Amino acid sequence: MALKTLGAKAAAALDQELMSSSAFSLDQLMELAGLSVSQAIFRLQPPQKGRRILVACGPGNNGGDGLVAARHLFYYGYQPTIFYPKRGKNELYQRLAKQLEDLNIPFVDDFQTAAESTDHIVDAIFGFSFSGEVREPFPAVIRALEQTKLPVTSVDAPSSWDIESGPPKAGLGSAFMPTALVSLTAPKPLVKHFHGRHFVGGRFVSPAIAEKYKFEVPKYEGVDQVVEISAGNQRL
Amino acid sequence: MALKTLGAKAAAALDQELMSSSAFSLDQLMELAGLSVSQAIFRLQPPQKGRRILVACGPGNNGGDGLVAARHLFYYGYQPTIFYPKRGKNELYQRLAKQLEDLNIPFVDDFQTAAESTDHIVDAIFGFSFSGEVREPFPAVIRALEQTKLPVTSVDAPSSWDIESGPPKAGLGSAFMPTALVSLTAPKPLVKHFHGRHFVGGRFVSPAIAEKYKFEVPKYEGVDQVVEISAGNQRL
Repeated sequence: MALKTLGAKAAAALDQELMSSSAFSLDQLMELAGLSVSQAIFRLQPPQKGRRILVACGPGNNGGDGLVAARHLFYYGYQPTIFYPKRGKNELYQRLAKQLEDLNIPFVDDFQTAAESTDHIVDAIFGFSFSGEVREPFPAVIRALEQTKLPVTSVDAPSSWDIESGPPKAGLGSAFMPTALVSLTAPKPLVKHFHGRHFVGGRFVSPAIAEKYKFEVPKYEGVDQVVEISAGNQRL
Repeated sequence: MALKTLGAKAAAALDQELMSSSAFSLDQLMELAGLSVSQAIFRLQPPQKGRRILVACGPGNNGGDGLVAARHLFYYGYQPTIFYPKRGKNELYQRLAKQLEDLNIPFVDDFQTAAESTDHIVDAIFGFSFSGEVREPFPAVIRALEQTKLPVTSVDAPSSWDIESGPPKAGLGSAFMPTALVSLTAPKPLVKHFHGRHFVGGRFVSPAIAEKYKFEVPKYEGVDQVVEISAGNQRL
């Protein structure tokens, strides 16, 4: 049986519902989403295997999740570096960036150079609302992600992939296969095309919401905010 | 050497600074504070030792931390029950309560009866801004906390205690000694009078803030949001 997934429209409706009738604020949800990403990175890249984490952030909520993850990684003892070339205008994103600046976490302008001296890359460029074309300055970043030998963890979606149909058939992004993926709230249809370690995060989906949107909340352990999905509980 | 503590005025100034120059929102801070409380409860009361947790919430931020902790406890598999007789008017508190209602977590009016069928009590009634008199309907709750045989975990301060001088010399609260205390950001002076398991939570204090307010951030492990303070790292 296939893993139950949440399409782009349903994911947007779910987010909207969490922030309206479920009364969550974007601050709260982004804090928990970014926290779950940071916990996945801790498992994928324990500090003793290299503490340098380059976080590539896009202009929207996916980038915001990356900013939150970077802050938690700092507190776990990592050395994050942020590539955030198109800063979102939303005041929340500005506050999240300020929180990193207060920790003296460097923001860099040149992704490729930064990627030469890091241990792990977090792709928080585009999330479930991405469609169409990769805009400047991100094409060069996607090419670098296609070519790097370093581990790459994507947040919610490998950037440049279509949420429904997965990687582009040809051209930019068609050769991008991240090492790991952290699906937030529920996997998106693109996971059918993903081969790598797969985590689910966002431990704030109520049983009623999961039922309404017809997906299953995975079984988290203890106080974990993230769970690795094995072939077993994907029910393949 | 004595544990470094943060007085009531300094704690208020620190909170204010986190929300102004450090650009945190109350939503974010309360989410992380409540999360750290939930992780302490998980250690104090593992689910197999009893899942029923009665959370007594006061009208202010301490109560808000309790509401957040209760939500996380639900997701860890506990059965929280909420006593929240004086609901804060702040829209954040209203949203936090709504998030619990959506999980069908019961809100009860009678603390004493609820305390007869629970395994652990969380005291999230008053925090560092408490001073003076315990107002209705809380005196009866404090008396119940003094008399109960159940484990009680206090959030930031044992309710009714003076933040600087600790338990009242006589009368209401003078016999209240919780089993455990979760100090948020830094211990308050009252900890000198506390005998029990002591945790610190709130893993969001920057090195610069800790230096400014002259306290030490304890050494958290891994991705933990809470740390138990032993005699060793209290540097007694």
